[in-house]
Amino acid sequence: MNLDKSVDPMLIVALNVAATFVFGLSGGLAAVRAKLDIVGVMVLAAVVGLAGGVTRDLLIGTPPATFRDGRYLAAVGAAGLVCFFAHSVIERVHRSVLFFDAIGLSLFCVTGASTALAFGLGATQAIILGAITGIGGGMLRDVLLREVPIVLRSELYAVPALAGASVVAIAHAAGSNSAAWAVAGAAVCLVIRLLGMRYGVTLPSAPEERRSDPDAN
Amino acid sequence: MNLDKSVDPMLIVALNVAATFVFGLSGGLAAVRAKLDIVGVMVLAAVVGLAGGVTRDLLIGTPPATFRDGRYLAAVGAAGLVCFFAHSVIERVHRSVLFFDAIGLSLFCVTGASTALAFGLGATQAIILGAITGIGGGMLRDVLLREVPIVLRSELYAVPALAGASVVAIAHAAGSNSAAWAVAGAAVCLVIRLLGMRYGVTLPSAPEERRSDPDAN
Amino acid sequence: MNLDKSVDPMLIVALNVAATFVFGLSGGLAAVRAKLDIVGVMVLAAVVGLAGGVTRDLLIGTPPATFRDGRYLAAVGAAGLVCFFAHSVIERVHRSVLFFDAIGLSLFCVTGASTALAFGLGATQAIILGAITGIGGGMLRDVLLREVPIVLRSELYAVPALAGASVVAIAHAAGSNSAAWAVAGAAVCLVIRLLGMRYGVTLPSAPEERRSDPDAN
Repeated sequence: MNLDKSVDPMLIVALNVAATFVFGLSGGLAAVRAKLDIVGVMVLAAVVGLAGGVTRDLLIGTPPATFRDGRYLAAVGAAGLVCFFAHSVIERVHRSVLFFDAIGLSLFCVTGASTALAFGLGATQAIILGAITGIGGGMLRDVLLREVPIVLRSELYAVPALAGASVVAIAHAAGSNSAAWAVAGAAVCLVIRLLGMRYGVTLPSAPEERRSDPDAN
Repeated sequence: MNLDKSVDPMLIVALNVAATFVFGLSGGLAAVRAKLDIVGVMVLAAVVGLAGGVTRDLLIGTPPATFRDGRYLAAVGAAGLVCFFAHSVIERVHRSVLFFDAIGLSLFCVTGASTALAFGLGATQAIILGAITGIGGGMLRDVLLREVPIVLRSELYAVPALAGASVVAIAHAAGSNSAAWAVAGAAVCLVIRLLGMRYGVTLPSAPEERRSDPDAN
Repeated sequence: MNLDKSVDPMLIVALNVAATFVFGLSGGLAAVRAKLDIVGVMVLAAVVGLAGGVTRDLLIGTPPATFRDGRYLAAVGAAGLVCFFAHSVIERVHRSVLFFDAIGLSLFCVTGASTALAFGLGATQAIILGAITGIGGGMLRDVLLREVPIVLRSELYAVPALAGASVVAIAHAAGSNSAAWAVAGAAVCLVIRLLGMRYGVTLPSAPEERRSDPDAN
């Protein structure tokens, strides 16, 4: 493991804790809206906040940091309590679960890529792991609430995560691990995601190449 | 890893195998009721019986014991066969999948916490991992059968698991790893869970703080 | 880890990459049919192609090979692109997602069992891990698209995987790790699966032993 040539570990931790908290908010809010009780709110906050990072660590092959480092548990605990007791305040900040989801996505795609690079994985792997870290929590939230995951529906969701992670991975490949690239990557992801939400950008579906339907020809 | 200051490993294994078996029964019975075939019954017994412990081990960062120790596989295999060939007997013991689920929950919350403590994790982590170990199997069962997981619905489900795990973690913090605390923790969990089921105890949902609906004011 | 007494590692890798590709096709095709966009197609191809092997490695307790070895990512990437841009060609080869699913199942059950044996696990564990490797991807595909997993519905799905893995495990126990047994195991699995699909073979559901309904007696 080579931690020298990577983004400052303390910055990664700080961004990770922040991402865990906002994803926790998105999970907790979704739970409040689904009329779950306080345990459901806490559980969903924890699952959504922690799933991305745990998945990343398991895929890298390192023990998940979550249960070694109490700050992550504190972050999701706080997020769950805030959602339960002050959800109307949270919703007033912005109406949407998706707003917090977008911030969490932006932070996690950057920290996921940085963590992968810190463990010596290549640029392609780092970009994909960055996207997985960002996407994992939201996917699990949707599965648990029995919706088809947002990333699979026609919205711009994985693309911003891949873009944000790419900023970090490309800067790393070019020899720079400045914290500025992590911030830039998160900003790139957030801007693309919010613009996509604002203007309802969708990606193309597979071209209809005339299904092989003999009757139609 | 410090196994000296923890509950007797043999007791943990015995309780784990027992929990795996009864969770296997709950999974197998759910499969029988959903009219699945014998493979579906065996698979669901295995998934529900093993998911909690596997999740715990992955979160701790140790290879899952399940596939190193044939007793766990034997336990879910036996549970699946019993459910398939003698489900009416099982149901006569108690009508409900939830009864076996409650016993599994009680045993796993204790063994999950004990295992976490044995690996040197702190009390908070041990309590949460105990709850996860107990909850994991049932969550996966519900997701596979396309129900919103029981723990997210308004019932007393995670609370008893947290309480049972807390007994073990608090005793450990106080310097005692007597097996009696493991038994006591399981009993606490089981009693709370069964009382909650009997009297239909539910937890509060988030307070309705007047949704910010301008038309309504 | 004893790699001497196991099937040729290069053969395992080749079969694994091939299985990853065809499972990727099955995931990508399912995504195209569900009208997902290109990201949804790529994600589903990746999830279905990689989930089985990742699960196997996590259960064995070794870091998932997927992110250390770019060939797996290349395989699912290629599968996703093929599905998106040429799905009608793919569908003309055979109408069904299930055809590619069957090939992936056959390859993965063999490589899963071989990998488990290579890590020194016993024959029973190897057979079960072979089946899990084969089944995992399809289960996750169905959960994400909100269907009850195919393996839990009444079709011959896990049985061929268990049979194919058994060929490898039994040959290994008898002292032979010839590549021929891997090929034979995959063929056994594929033939049983395709025959099962062709003739609509189903497994028995649990016997109806007169539900304990006092009114009915």
